[in-house]
Amino acid sequence: MVPHLLTAANGPILALEKKLLDATPAIERWFRLEWQEHTPPFYASVDVRNAGFKLAPIDTNLFPASIHLLSDDTLPLAVQAAMAAIDKYCPDARHLLLIPDAPLRDAGDLRNLVRLASVLRQTGLEVRFGSLDPSLTHAISLPLEDGGTVLLEPIARQGKRIGLHNFDPCAILLNNDLSAGVPALLQGLAGQVVLPPLHAGWSVRRKSRHFTAYQEVSKRFAKAFGIDPWSLHPIFVACKIHQESVAKGLAQVQEAVDHVLKQVRAKYKEYGISHQPFVIVKGDAGTRGQGVISIKDSAEFLQQSTALMAELQAMSASSKVLELVVQEGVPTVETVDAAAAEPVVYTLDRYVVGGFYRVNAERGRDENLNAPGMRFKPLPFASSCNTPDCLAQAKTNRFNAYGVVARLALLAASIELERTDPDQALHGN
Amino acid sequence: MVPHLLTAANGPILALEKKLLDATPAIERWFRLEWQEHTPPFYASVDVRNAGFKLAPIDTNLFPASIHLLSDDTLPLAVQAAMAAIDKYCPDARHLLLIPDAPLRDAGDLRNLVRLASVLRQTGLEVRFGSLDPSLTHAISLPLEDGGTVLLEPIARQGKRIGLHNFDPCAILLNNDLSAGVPALLQGLAGQVVLPPLHAGWSVRRKSRHFTAYQEVSKRFAKAFGIDPWSLHPIFVACKIHQESVAKGLAQVQEAVDHVLKQVRAKYKEYGISHQPFVIVKGDAGTRGQGVISIKDSAEFLQQSTALMAELQAMSASSKVLELVVQEGVPTVETVDAAAAEPVVYTLDRYVVGGFYRVNAERGRDENLNAPGMRFKPLPFASSCNTPDCLAQAKTNRFNAYGVVARLALLAASIELERTDPDQALHGN
Repeated sequence: MVPHLLTAANGPILALEKKLLDATPAIERWFRLEWQEHTPPFYASVDVRNAGFKLAPIDTNLFPASIHLLSDDTLPLAVQAAMAAIDKYCPDARHLLLIPDAPLRDAGDLRNLVRLASVLRQTGLEVRFGSLDPSLTHAISLPLEDGGTVLLEPIARQGKRIGLHNFDPCAILLNNDLSAGVPALLQGLAGQVVLPPLHAGWSVRRKSRHFTAYQEVSKRFAKAFGIDPWSLHPIFVACKIHQESVAKGLAQVQEAVDHVLKQVRAKYKEYGISHQPFVIVKGDAGTRGQGVISIKDSAEFLQQSTALMAELQAMSASSKVLELVVQEGVPTVETVDAAAAEPVVYTLDRYVVGGFYRVNAERGRDENLNAPGMRFKPLPFASSCNTPDCLAQAKTNRFNAYGVVARLALLAASIELERTDPDQALHGN
Repeated sequence: MVPHLLTAANGPILALEKKLLDATPAIERWFRLEWQEHTPPFYASVDVRNAGFKLAPIDTNLFPASIHLLSDDTLPLAVQAAMAAIDKYCPDARHLLLIPDAPLRDAGDLRNLVRLASVLRQTGLEVRFGSLDPSLTHAISLPLEDGGTVLLEPIARQGKRIGLHNFDPCAILLNNDLSAGVPALLQGLAGQVVLPPLHAGWSVRRKSRHFTAYQEVSKRFAKAFGIDPWSLHPIFVACKIHQESVAKGLAQVQEAVDHVLKQVRAKYKEYGISHQPFVIVKGDAGTRGQGVISIKDSAEFLQQSTALMAELQAMSASSKVLELVVQEGVPTVETVDAAAAEPVVYTLDRYVVGGFYRVNAERGRDENLNAPGMRFKPLPFASSCNTPDCLAQAKTNRFNAYGVVARLALLAASIELERTDPDQALHGN
């Protein structure tokens, strides 16, 4: 089920969107059966691009810091989904320790925390905030815009459990993507449920692994519903640049760019698409859009690679290998106030609970919008259908297609996490 | 979690409501643990009465025919809850046979069916309608107000399965309360999930059994949260009138009326309540408010009993025993357009998904509103909280208390169904 949210694009429903809408019962059953085999991540946000001729996820975040960007009216859906998730992972839980990013970046981060805690409290949990920042030795009150405060406390470890002063949590929710690695504090815990699991952090995750799983999932889905799989997934190639052979590495990336562009050109020709193909080159791990470049020709890569190298190096100073993904660029047809926009779909457990737009007036439709200048716009529910043609209106639910594609990415994330689970025996692999 | 719906009553939150609101995380955990032990009915609607000094369910319907009375904006919650339910009972299901009341009574019944089917389709099911009416020998199209139609088909039985022409359902959803007994067509089915189970029908159910379970549940809950259990449950006594000794039976009912009134008077005195106590006398089985009388004195019972007897006899002509419940009347403080109103809370699986008011301008606050003259008013979501004091606004969620009490009734229904399950071994009894 995908709630009917009001999208910015209000043109006619495109062929692919219509196909997905018309197949709703069969698609929902398809997911229902998939979720018997796979366990969705606790929560996620999926960046989706609607190019008109194709619709694909371009990034899947397993530590979403954006629940405050959802429209208020979608929150009951979030609470209900969170109830289902808590019931599955830790049905007895009374205390939940929420671990935010360290350091917290801005007021938005605090709003996210406050709302996340508010949703979790409504599932029957006492929620407190513990920081991974080792320099935090005593609790601090962070001021909120409305005059309230968030109490951030130092985490203490005792044996194989962590907690706060007078607070022994049954469950630990990470809202920190562990880009800097898994701190010793969190390693080897026992008797406490950690959500999502530690290997969902960026020290283990690779976008290439995610998109490999996504490619498999979307192929199966596309076959079941008579769709060209390319209309759902971005073509990609993973590359590595070793520090001892940078020139060779750069040449390989250029080859990869050429290879992807060639395939995309062939597809564009097949469908008579006049758009100029482009690719996105980005780090195979990491988040927040750093070091993401958009190019239309492999020669451009060398021009932009210095900055890219510096940026990527800064992200993983100790690494001797630069892992990159060269991914087909998916232009977005959506605009908000004339600026390029892409929908971000927020999920809790297996459920799509809401969405928002990432809007960036300083970037084009062929560029990464997750960059300075971006702002966000919640997607509210479409005006409720109080006329008998409610069903007819549901047929124009453009957000439905975004919800389907986001859940394909969610399924890919589940499979990706099974494959990287240190205790793979659990999944029969 | 109880969504924040807009109630008609907008006075200050009463002490009991505040107590329930303040204890939200603990209450939600209490329910979470209870649902580990008990399985909620597939769906239900609970009539709740808010007297100001007490808040209690007065009727629990396990075959609600009112999903069309929910506000449109609550429907995504219904779909999400239905997904959870289908996933639990029949995760592989592709086809669902929906069995409505026979005969269907009015346009509202059809709207209910259409919406129920629409919700279920969004969980990934193909839904068709089969009638229990044995006189229906071929499919008929029932016209809808919007020009559409509902196709009602005759049910065919093959061995231990039922179905429609070219439609072999995995799941059967009853939206028919089986007041007339369980037809042979439905008996002894195997390999198909019947929701809710057959013993949830009124040929087996008794209100006294439900309210016995409710009394136990509400006592436990009240103890856990420091509340006088009386503030949550209506005092009641079950009586029987045998046809061969009607006079004796009537005298016993009078005694029961006196007994309940005496207890209520004592409670009113304890709390300094100036309201005049009253009791409701109604059949122990059955629905739709027939034969329900409201009296303030046991002498009134004899005056009204002739009509009652005739009405009740008509409901169960073959029965030699009249089973009655004498229940403490709970006045309602709620009004809609100056008419007495009571909230009805709609649940799917364990979730409160919406509600509506039953309004009756021809009845008083001390009377059964489920009677000729009643109309309905959906409860929409309270205006969304787009200011930082969202939390403050949530503290005025009056509907929260209704959702808590309705879920206590839901829990009671679960226990009641366990106790009447013909295959009790399943529940370890």
